[in-house]
Amino acid sequence: MTQRQVKAAVLLIGDEILSGRTQDINLQAIAKFLAPLGVQVAEARVVADIPEDIIEGVNALRAKYDYVFTTGGIGPTHDDKTADAMAAVFGVRIDVRDDARAILEAHYKGATNLNESRLRMARIPDGASLIANPVSRAPGFQIGNVFVMAGVPSIVRGMLTDIGHRIEGGAVVRSRTIRGRSVREGDIAADLEALEVATEGAVSFGSYPWFAPPDSFGLHLVARSADPVALEKAANDLIALIRARGVEAEDVNDAS
Amino acid sequence: MTQRQVKAAVLLIGDEILSGRTQDINLQAIAKFLAPLGVQVAEARVVADIPEDIIEGVNALRAKYDYVFTTGGIGPTHDDKTADAMAAVFGVRIDVRDDARAILEAHYKGATNLNESRLRMARIPDGASLIANPVSRAPGFQIGNVFVMAGVPSIVRGMLTDIGHRIEGGAVVRSRTIRGRSVREGDIAADLEALEVATEGAVSFGSYPWFAPPDSFGLHLVARSADPVALEKAANDLIALIRARGVEAEDVNDAS
Repeated sequence: MTQRQVKAAVLLIGDEILSGRTQDINLQAIAKFLAPLGVQVAEARVVADIPEDIIEGVNALRAKYDYVFTTGGIGPTHDDKTADAMAAVFGVRIDVRDDARAILEAHYKGATNLNESRLRMARIPDGASLIANPVSRAPGFQIGNVFVMAGVPSIVRGMLTDIGHRIEGGAVVRSRTIRGRSVREGDIAADLEALEVATEGAVSFGSYPWFAPPDSFGLHLVARSADPVALEKAANDLIALIRARGVEAEDVNDAS
Repeated sequence: MTQRQVKAAVLLIGDEILSGRTQDINLQAIAKFLAPLGVQVAEARVVADIPEDIIEGVNALRAKYDYVFTTGGIGPTHDDKTADAMAAVFGVRIDVRDDARAILEAHYKGATNLNESRLRMARIPDGASLIANPVSRAPGFQIGNVFVMAGVPSIVRGMLTDIGHRIEGGAVVRSRTIRGRSVREGDIAADLEALEVATEGAVSFGSYPWFAPPDSFGLHLVARSADPVALEKAANDLIALIRARGVEAEDVNDAS
């Protein structure tokens, strides 16, 4: 039995990523979170804090993939445009919602004032379900197949813990990485392709050079497959392929 | 006189970024390289090593932006699909080209064999001009408004040095960052929006919380503008905005 491949897209929202001010680390965190659930990230986009760009990105991705995960743009400041953009995408009303407001009231009572700006974080599109934020409380939300999260990486990690149970995954694609030393891509390329062809689509192989200055170099050869038996064979084949050059091959990771 | 805004897109190509195996750092490097040339990155996408996905991404982005910069997929192995995809995008022939072949022959003579796999790196679409690779020699190329680079970050940095002179930039957007301590977004959001509104589009403001566990926190407030006078005023306004809360404000960087 072959399980369905379930695919997701990630939409990173924020001027600060495009300007180079901020190094995104959310894409990698989301991809690593989803993989063991049987969901592969098949595309990602980064757009600015511009409603039209957010709307266009979400619409393109939600039609094409099973799930969409967004980060950024749900804070209290004027450059946070994501929630309203999502309401526009789904053609629904958006306003301060009681359940979200109650979360903020409980959090901000006392020291800090729940002013109009903070109440913006309780604006939730009609029909969305909240995503808990264990870090700073202001919730994310799910609407349709789109999961809307904050941009701060620690909050993303927190919100993902309230998302896993909502995901229906498919085949879990696992990978094995074999590290070869003093071997170059051009020397193994033909054999690597032959290995992939022989699997008839069951395994995909990737080759990634590494350099450790001043003079160490080599390759990480990666096999990816949803079939554990084919993957195990592929890892052994990669080790043999490298050792046939008379150089070291190391099994860097286990299936994960 | 208002200079034209010149915009670029970045297309990161590679299964390894989408799977989370590799943390991309090329987007940030490209954005920081282009900014002082008067080119703003307005969108980025990440696609897998799948010809159709590469072609679709390039076509969408090259029609919409002044320049497109791609990374990844131009090595010697079977999962390197970018060069052929570019030929398809522009509807031109692709084959081993003499100028690219000469570069590889000079590099590989002696110790390493210039075999068929390595010769794949001399496959260049008709009409493209080469981009020098000072690290590992195999060239990138420019075709139309698309710059095709390798995926390895050190090679990207090297190739960018052969790209700058080909770029016709516009207005240089500079930024100033003011760091406030013990101040929360919700407390300054209304005033921050008022500052942006008052500039009538000359300056855009962004707000980015920071946390330094266990108990330090604050904001980076960022002003971005192509107008140096408006930017200087914006930076001073941001400092005043934060100090009005009775907390520290620090000018973190100069215009750059």
